[in-house]
Amino acid sequence: MDRRSFLRTSAVGGTAAAASSLAAPAIAQGNRTLTFVTTWGRGLAGVHDSAQYCADSITALTDGSLTVDLKAGGELVGAFEVFDAVSAGQADMYHGVDYYFLGQHPALSFFSQIPFGMTFQEFNNWFYHDGGQELADELYSIFGLKAFPAGNTGPQSGGWFSKEINSPSDFEGLRFRMPGQGGQVLGKLGASVQNLPGAEVYQALASGAIDGTEWIGPWADEAAGFQEVAKIYYPSGFHEPGPNLNLVVSLEVWEDLSRTQQAAIEQTARASNIWTMSLFMANNSAALQRLQSEGVQLREFPDSVWDAFGSAAEEVVQENMDDPLYADCYDSFMESMKSSAGWSSRSEQVFTAQRNRVRGL
Amino acid sequence: MDRRSFLRTSAVGGTAAAASSLAAPAIAQGNRTLTFVTTWGRGLAGVHDSAQYCADSITALTDGSLTVDLKAGGELVGAFEVFDAVSAGQADMYHGVDYYFLGQHPALSFFSQIPFGMTFQEFNNWFYHDGGQELADELYSIFGLKAFPAGNTGPQSGGWFSKEINSPSDFEGLRFRMPGQGGQVLGKLGASVQNLPGAEVYQALASGAIDGTEWIGPWADEAAGFQEVAKIYYPSGFHEPGPNLNLVVSLEVWEDLSRTQQAAIEQTARASNIWTMSLFMANNSAALQRLQSEGVQLREFPDSVWDAFGSAAEEVVQENMDDPLYADCYDSFMESMKSSAGWSSRSEQVFTAQRNRVRGL
Repeated sequence: MDRRSFLRTSAVGGTAAAASSLAAPAIAQGNRTLTFVTTWGRGLAGVHDSAQYCADSITALTDGSLTVDLKAGGELVGAFEVFDAVSAGQADMYHGVDYYFLGQHPALSFFSQIPFGMTFQEFNNWFYHDGGQELADELYSIFGLKAFPAGNTGPQSGGWFSKEINSPSDFEGLRFRMPGQGGQVLGKLGASVQNLPGAEVYQALASGAIDGTEWIGPWADEAAGFQEVAKIYYPSGFHEPGPNLNLVVSLEVWEDLSRTQQAAIEQTARASNIWTMSLFMANNSAALQRLQSEGVQLREFPDSVWDAFGSAAEEVVQENMDDPLYADCYDSFMESMKSSAGWSSRSEQVFTAQRNRVRGL
Repeated sequence: MDRRSFLRTSAVGGTAAAASSLAAPAIAQGNRTLTFVTTWGRGLAGVHDSAQYCADSITALTDGSLTVDLKAGGELVGAFEVFDAVSAGQADMYHGVDYYFLGQHPALSFFSQIPFGMTFQEFNNWFYHDGGQELADELYSIFGLKAFPAGNTGPQSGGWFSKEINSPSDFEGLRFRMPGQGGQVLGKLGASVQNLPGAEVYQALASGAIDGTEWIGPWADEAAGFQEVAKIYYPSGFHEPGPNLNLVVSLEVWEDLSRTQQAAIEQTARASNIWTMSLFMANNSAALQRLQSEGVQLREFPDSVWDAFGSAAEEVVQENMDDPLYADCYDSFMESMKSSAGWSSRSEQVFTAQRNRVRGL
């Protein structure tokens, strides 16, 4: 996913200062409008749909007592100003993926995505029932916020390549576009990591200015047209196996809401969580079939490359362990991931592999 | 899962007749009480929790306009009378798994579980975004009902055995407890399928009256104590890879509710869907670790046995194809499952297998 592809309001610099010029939330006749900002450009497939789902559901559930006013990235504050805007109290809540805000606190990575981390289901096991929510409450309260998982893209693709990757050394000098912690991991493997704006990636790949790129998954990748300029696709990647999309509410606003209004937000986020994940999965499946019919060749990284991804990812994730809250999150996250893997690897993964083999899926 | 382990009200025979003696839903001062029956004994881990979650959330979201009165299996009508009771209008909604009601319509299997069928995520892809909901609306409306997926146990275990299963012929004459369509599949493999009441299974296994049993998964299996009398456990099974727990509302009641009340039910069901699945997954993981520490040996069926499961399961599922709606559901279900598998088998399953290998999980 490319943070640079989203709309930015260039006029907004220091976000708290800029946000202070916004109107305070309207309260009239006992009813209230919640200003809801997002890190997504309006209409961005899947992720904006998820934010819209949240807005519509909260409004519908509260029967007029809350009206959610959705402002896409750039419409009120820039896509990457939403954390600061809600923290400062100039917007009421946001929808986004919190690895955009690691500069605020590195532990936000555990509530968005760490490379080589949890899948969607594992994250939910942890968040709802194995200590994740309590740690999130501690972390987000530092910034006057309260977070609710509200969607997921599912595992993001390894990306598009002009040649096959057969060993970790094939990344040496490879000009590859991947933002964030995933890009840091590839940098450790010797890649020349590019952070091109989204709008420039297609042309760069077509002209040979870069050797490859990751994007999101088949649904979004197909829309971007990468199949026209690259034919080797690695559906599975290490960098974002299940990025959580958060619905984050101002803690001051939250505590001022009625219990019914709070329930509307909490249940909506959970409903959006499974609805959004399923939206991506259903669309990715169909898009992957179309890509294959257009001649795209699917590949998997060999074990030696996965080994290299894993070692480098752990190096990147370990770099913040001097922060005590980060370390607490790391320990809880890793213990829960191990526990979840112990069951799923012996149950659903075995079943699915056998079913697909027997049915020829 | 054992339908016989749940409470039954023996006095209730013909369910519609018995249900007609129940009070009609109370409507007073514009507020309304919804009578909510379930197929679960009160307190049954996970599944009763899921029903309670639904009751509490709908009540909380509607701020007094709806009060959900939860009656566990046997408290108002028997566990297996809930479909008829709501269909006949003597209760307002139920929570249950609809393979208990295949006698009403065989296509209910697609909205609960078919052997060798979909996982939790695949089912949700289909239901929310790939045609499942429209078929469910058609099917349930025949009975004056409307269905909302509201939870899942995740994949159920293959079960407990006194000896290893090394080939399909090892099922010949094996006295094994497995209810429902899964049991029919084992019957085709030559097993002597037993449908013991839940309360008798432990003793039957301990005495050697049966050679093995399936139950639910590590969390529930541990509570039943099977690890005390059998040491060979197959965590992965073919029979219930992702049984859907439905929240089913009387269509007449549904159409009489306000849009806000309808939203409360629909969003609650979706929220419960992911919350319940995560509850089972988190608890199964921890329980499996305990079982292993108590000396339980984990095994996987060999490919030849999975082949036999698959062939026999398809025979069982094909037996109802003369019903047109069943056939429509079958076609839609199978096409969506194939599509979902085409993406997940190349993305999340590859990632998870590699991550677990590299991390040693």
